[in-house]
Amino acid sequence: MPDHTDPAGREAAATAASDWNAETLRAALGKAAEWTIDYRSHVEERPVFPAVAPGDVRRALGSAPPRSADPFERVLADFDEHIASGLTHWNHPGFLAYFSSSTRAPSIVAELLVAAIGVNAMLWRTSPAATEVERTAVDWLRQAVGLPESFSGLIFDTASTATFTALLAARERAGAGVRDHGLAGGPALAVYTSEQSHSSVEKSAMAAGLGRRALRRIETDAAFRMRPEALESAITEDLEAGIRPAMVCATIGTTSTASIDPVPALRSISDRYGVWLHVDAAYAGPAAMLPEQRPLFSGWEAADSVVLNPHKWLGTSLDCSVLLYRDSAPFRASLALTPTYLESEDDETNLMDIGLALGRRFRGLKLWVLFRCVGTDGLAETMRSHIAMAAAAAARLVDGGVFELAAPVSFSTVCFRAKLEGDPEGADRWNRDILRRVNAGGRSFLSHTELDGRYTVRLSVGSVHTEERHLDEVLEALHRAATDLSPGEPG
Amino acid sequence: MPDHTDPAGREAAATAASDWNAETLRAALGKAAEWTIDYRSHVEERPVFPAVAPGDVRRALGSAPPRSADPFERVLADFDEHIASGLTHWNHPGFLAYFSSSTRAPSIVAELLVAAIGVNAMLWRTSPAATEVERTAVDWLRQAVGLPESFSGLIFDTASTATFTALLAARERAGAGVRDHGLAGGPALAVYTSEQSHSSVEKSAMAAGLGRRALRRIETDAAFRMRPEALESAITEDLEAGIRPAMVCATIGTTSTASIDPVPALRSISDRYGVWLHVDAAYAGPAAMLPEQRPLFSGWEAADSVVLNPHKWLGTSLDCSVLLYRDSAPFRASLALTPTYLESEDDETNLMDIGLALGRRFRGLKLWVLFRCVGTDGLAETMRSHIAMAAAAAARLVDGGVFELAAPVSFSTVCFRAKLEGDPEGADRWNRDILRRVNAGGRSFLSHTELDGRYTVRLSVGSVHTEERHLDEVLEALHRAATDLSPGEPG
Repeated sequence: MPDHTDPAGREAAATAASDWNAETLRAALGKAAEWTIDYRSHVEERPVFPAVAPGDVRRALGSAPPRSADPFERVLADFDEHIASGLTHWNHPGFLAYFSSSTRAPSIVAELLVAAIGVNAMLWRTSPAATEVERTAVDWLRQAVGLPESFSGLIFDTASTATFTALLAARERAGAGVRDHGLAGGPALAVYTSEQSHSSVEKSAMAAGLGRRALRRIETDAAFRMRPEALESAITEDLEAGIRPAMVCATIGTTSTASIDPVPALRSISDRYGVWLHVDAAYAGPAAMLPEQRPLFSGWEAADSVVLNPHKWLGTSLDCSVLLYRDSAPFRASLALTPTYLESEDDETNLMDIGLALGRRFRGLKLWVLFRCVGTDGLAETMRSHIAMAAAAAARLVDGGVFELAAPVSFSTVCFRAKLEGDPEGADRWNRDILRRVNAGGRSFLSHTELDGRYTVRLSVGSVHTEERHLDEVLEALHRAATDLSPGEPG
Repeated sequence: MPDHTDPAGREAAATAASDWNAETLRAALGKAAEWTIDYRSHVEERPVFPAVAPGDVRRALGSAPPRSADPFERVLADFDEHIASGLTHWNHPGFLAYFSSSTRAPSIVAELLVAAIGVNAMLWRTSPAATEVERTAVDWLRQAVGLPESFSGLIFDTASTATFTALLAARERAGAGVRDHGLAGGPALAVYTSEQSHSSVEKSAMAAGLGRRALRRIETDAAFRMRPEALESAITEDLEAGIRPAMVCATIGTTSTASIDPVPALRSISDRYGVWLHVDAAYAGPAAMLPEQRPLFSGWEAADSVVLNPHKWLGTSLDCSVLLYRDSAPFRASLALTPTYLESEDDETNLMDIGLALGRRFRGLKLWVLFRCVGTDGLAETMRSHIAMAAAAAARLVDGGVFELAAPVSFSTVCFRAKLEGDPEGADRWNRDILRRVNAGGRSFLSHTELDGRYTVRLSVGSVHTEERHLDEVLEALHRAATDLSPGEPG
């Protein structure tokens, strides 16, 4: 407890209370900038996944908050020693797990500026430029990926939030009055998505009060694409049972295999039954900037809403997930509320009216800075090189005879496994061991999934730091692990 | 369209595609750091609210994304000319609107480090230190505000998201099985909060599928505090009507007046009926660090969940909203899902299991850095000075005889109006005009609300940049405006 009868103590606290002066801030920013440059230059020398056990970092940081201020040098030293050494390095060039992502350098600088100004973009009035830069950057992205002018949108933290927000709009359209009356007493609603879609669709259905059981996991074909005829059967069955279809969520670039649902066929069906069509292109969406990839996005221009994440493949820092929609009315209908204390006389878009969060970071700036400092040609070229690297890696994996592809290669994602005929469980164990061995080496980081009930290794190229040589290295490590851990003859 | 048959064009694009090298990043960070220091040193010379009309910024930024890269110098110059001049300056010392907030310098530096490492804290495994720093910083905050060890928690973007997440947990407890079966077919649920509570409670009820009508706005007393007996009546009425009470949301520091609900009495009632008690202390919560303010928080230690926003009064940058709870089980029960591709063998907290979003920024770092670089004594002292400045301003406002308080002064928030006996509509007009005049001056920025049906001006002190002289200035401006705009005799 601070002793408030002690004048010396009060004085010390009063000194600590004022913010750093310009010189202290300049010195701290200079040190943090040097740390940043050193980190990015040498991250490859660190193991991708750190050698820490649960609780190690917490113990090192101490259990109680400090009463008095520490100089930044000491804080940065502790950060370097205890925190940076306990990170999984998403900006390591060998990070090829999940959907690999990275932070392009201009986005780092943009985040500094965002923090410096510290505005809240909830209303146009609470920071006009923040709202207008966000709308500009979102519209630039729309143009770059070739979506029609009728689409507009805004930036959320994650695709989970964007998809949830779209579901609320779809829910309102399917069950008019849910906003006011809620779901109790109304008809059950259903959401349709493929077996391969992201868990956020399921979570959204749960959060929105539709329940997990409202989710129809539509079966996929051999290439992991939603079967349109299975969708139509599910919808008609529900309608016969008095269940109202609320949303079809198609995916362009699914989480496991990056497969592409047949969006035009799904649009026809959802049109036929008056159902909202949402397209989850969180990972792959930015690749529509490449003319040669554009045909894969056929049909998304007819969706009611689309989500794409610049923080995945485009290289903005977390978090930056763009939701685009053709009509803002159902979004406003589902959630907009303006309390008196936020009423304003400005006839302008107030982004807080779309979505749940009131306070809003100035997320648009990093996307705008990235467009300006890299340009659409540069952004496209990076993705083109990732797609080429992934295709080459897939070809070389198969060439060795040890591995086989577990799914068609789509965008920059490769799903594969070491082949072991006649012993699926042995194959699962072998592949799990191979993945563990490669990841334990610290030079590469891959992830896994399950396809057709089988353990499957995934490699996804999406970092601005990744070069051919990093793929050479992981391919060599995979082959070496497969040989070292060879299960021999199946029992 | 890029011409991909042109080898020179391809080469240029390939150059642009690679990320900045260390020297380019160093130069850009240096320029952005100097811009930051200059901005913070001179922000007081800018008008708090910018002289822009809707659309001005968008027009200046241009309508199409650039194909080629611009040097950072040019981008920064455009940022300065077109964007920084179109901001509402939340870090201006005269910003006294809403709940005034500001970014303390160490938080700016922390955001740079967060962007530099660019990790995703969805699972412990996806960045062990990010999860553990977040847990450490949240626990330090818990200790600093005196909540018992039984509370743990995590960081969301905003209090809206935190309260929504708490409502999902409460919804699951009140209507077991909502997670799986949804709300259709089940009993109607209700949420109780005061007439003065934040709009996010209403939005959460809408988003969660309970509907706006599920919200019971409980009446308040003369000091704008929820009336316990009115709460109990509402609950018993609902029970008699077959409606199930899901959550009571009490507020410590309401949005308009910063009033404080009688939490111990509300806890007794919610215990009696087995209802979840959530405490919204988004604004005021950090003030529990002050021993002399701690009694105002009586009862919150018995809540099921509490939300406090370090990005409001504590000085972290947006976004940093801390949700604390006594039991994580109902949170997991309401939403947790782990898809195969994220299954891991680590026996550790995976923060994505609490809440909707999967991807998670490393928000814990700025809170940890702030504790280290300022210390709890320093953080407390800043809030203490704000409370003293608000009290002094209120006293001087009343002294002049022109203004009267519209609510008891609570924490650092003052609600007031210019007095005009017998003409409430004239008074509303007068006060609206006074506020407009003061805000138009560009030296101060106040907001307004409605209390007892009357237009009310609000002044809230919460920025590390605000000093006594800034309050002198706004008080003088208010008195001058009241005199200049005096409505004379009421009609």
